[in-house]
Amino acid sequence: MSTEENIAKTIDGKTIAANIRTGIKEDVDKLVASGKRAPGIVVILVGDRQDSHTYVRNKKKTATEMGFVSIDCILPGNTSQEEVIEIVRKYNQMPEIDGILVQLPLPSHINEETVLNEIDITKDVDGFHPINIGKLAMRGRVPLFEPCTPKGCIELLLQSGVTIEGKNAVVLGRSNIVGLPVAMLLMNRNATVTICHSKTANLKEVVAQADILVAAIGVAKFVKKDWVKKGAVVIDVGMNTDENNKLCGDVDFNEVKHVASQITPVPGGVGPMTIAMLLKNTLISAMRRQGVEKL
Amino acid sequence: MSTEENIAKTIDGKTIAANIRTGIKEDVDKLVASGKRAPGIVVILVGDRQDSHTYVRNKKKTATEMGFVSIDCILPGNTSQEEVIEIVRKYNQMPEIDGILVQLPLPSHINEETVLNEIDITKDVDGFHPINIGKLAMRGRVPLFEPCTPKGCIELLLQSGVTIEGKNAVVLGRSNIVGLPVAMLLMNRNATVTICHSKTANLKEVVAQADILVAAIGVAKFVKKDWVKKGAVVIDVGMNTDENNKLCGDVDFNEVKHVASQITPVPGGVGPMTIAMLLKNTLISAMRRQGVEKL
Ligand SMILES: NC(=O)C1=CN([C@@H]2O[C@H](COP(=O)(O)OP(=O)(O)OC[C@H]3O[C@@H](n4cnc5c(N)ncnc54)[C@H](OP(=O)(O)O)[C@@H]3O)[C@@H](O)[C@H]2O)C=CC1
Ligand SMILES: NC(=O)C1=CN([C@@H]2O[C@H](COP(=O)(O)OP(=O)(O)OC[C@H]3O[C@@H](n4cnc5c(N)ncnc54)[C@H](OP(=O)(O)O)[C@@H]3O)[C@@H](O)[C@H]2O)C=CC1
Repeated sequence: MSTEENIAKTIDGKTIAANIRTGIKEDVDKLVASGKRAPGIVVILVGDRQDSHTYVRNKKKTATEMGFVSIDCILPGNTSQEEVIEIVRKYNQMPEIDGILVQLPLPSHINEETVLNEIDITKDVDGFHPINIGKLAMRGRVPLFEPCTPKGCIELLLQSGVTIEGKNAVVLGRSNIVGLPVAMLLMNRNATVTICHSKTANLKEVVAQADILVAAIGVAKFVKKDWVKKGAVVIDVGMNTDENNKLCGDVDFNEVKHVASQITPVPGGVGPMTIAMLLKNTLISAMRRQGVEKL
Repeated sequence: MSTEENIAKTIDGKTIAANIRTGIKEDVDKLVASGKRAPGIVVILVGDRQDSHTYVRNKKKTATEMGFVSIDCILPGNTSQEEVIEIVRKYNQMPEIDGILVQLPLPSHINEETVLNEIDITKDVDGFHPINIGKLAMRGRVPLFEPCTPKGCIELLLQSGVTIEGKNAVVLGRSNIVGLPVAMLLMNRNATVTICHSKTANLKEVVAQADILVAAIGVAKFVKKDWVKKGAVVIDVGMNTDENNKLCGDVDFNEVKHVASQITPVPGGVGPMTIAMLLKNTLISAMRRQGVEKL
């Protein structure tokens, strides 16, 4: 059918995310024009990890551009768990806040689960509360929010014209924030899903079954050309640095593009989708909390 | 390696469950001897489905034999949702009740999700609350209770000396009560898990990858000999009736026993494990609620 010359279509997450942001901005304008509040989001960041600060700054900039009210709550690294919880509770009570995001990872003296469980589930725009994950996994239940990066992966597939139903989807990774929820979303859309992890014995063989491959393991250029089935669609969630200290994914893009039919680049693939989906979730929350069904 | 003469070892769920029940009875005796209450369970049954009544009768009989306090709350089919919820709330409040079980399916005028969500999660011995399912699915989270039939499947594997870690496990079915939670339990034990369902395109090929196959679809003798990999371990959750109106599983036992290394029969495989695991969960709850860590 195809020759070795074939090169996969690059899934342009940057442009897709930009279009989604435009749509969000329009919706926020309509919301405000109808006399309602703009969506409000607070990001709680504890400590001074550089990557977290960069990410939070980006979130704020984008949220503000979209017309959101965006609050950053930057706390010193030695803030106690009790103080963080108190702050979460304060924002739970604030009617003008629709989304609360606790930037992970938290410093090691703070229990992540305890803090995340404090977030009012109607404001859990990250979708990480066990109730949300439970509903995501269960038939006939609808979570209030779908986790952002996984939702971004699905959006990329849909906007690239990929049929999910009936396909073999292989997910590399089973983390709470990416691997597991993306597997559940693919299952909900009727893919046959296989979840792999560090204890998978025959990874190469399993990956070879994939019509849709989602890589979320955090190992630079791990997935090689000869692992991937010809024509597979490859979504690369990884954000790693390569030998030249350049950002790269979990997939060896330059190799795998010769066998895949479509593939996301890193950067410019899944990355830009995460913030777009976070803002979309916050918009959904703002509408819901103000009784607006449609704009 | 092996010749056509090889016949799979039958996994004797009846005996395994009986041994578990003996252990539970001993633990209940110890609990009571230490001055604590025996575990208390209530089963709420609405309507007059014959299979449900038989099942509830069995539960009560077994629970009573184990020394549990067992209450049946049998309600007419026209009981309103509000009344059922009020009854659930009543048992939520009763300190001597450790487990509340609402027999499914409920009559169609009652919303299953709404009723199940009312059960105090510390008494949700069926493990069906979304918080429990969420925690089951998430890394580093521990559900209060693991759903009974799935827990029974794992117990059968463990007691049959089957290594789960690193194996390819294929689960047929993704229901909230069997398929999905059994897949999560297998993943938690480090199997590479594939979840299949009615939209799976190439079921036969997927099943052929399985070192461990769990069938929970509800179609009599669906899985055939030529689907199953030689040496696979087969757990058959199905409870169906065959052409002669005899109870049978989702697997064609008489065929598949010639290729599998171990296989559960129907009846006498998974079936007896469910009530045993329910009573185990209720015992765990009774200990937890009375501050008993070890017996
Ligand atoms: N684009 C974006 O917006 C986002 C990108 N990311 C990126 O995605 C990647 C994954 O992130 P995250 O899910 O948080 O990572 P985690 O470290 O939490 O999880 C990694 C998962 O991959 C599995 N794994 C690790 N090594 C291997 C291996 N050699 N073979 C098979 N499986 C393996 C682990 O298995 P086990 O469970 O057995 O340990 C684990 O399930 C990272 O590069 C991260 O930076 C993350 C979030 C958002
Ligand atoms: N031993 C015990 O104690 C128990 C036994 N059971 C038995 O287990 C079986 C399953 O029960 P339950 O999970 O409640 O059933 P459900 O009907 O809720 O779920 C059946 C699942 O199987 C899938 N399925 C149905 N037909 C096919 C097919 N032809 N090919 C592939 N997948 C298919 C469905 O897919 P989709 O999601 O796409 O519809 C669905 O996910 C039944 O026989 C039941 O009696 C159940 C509970 C306890």
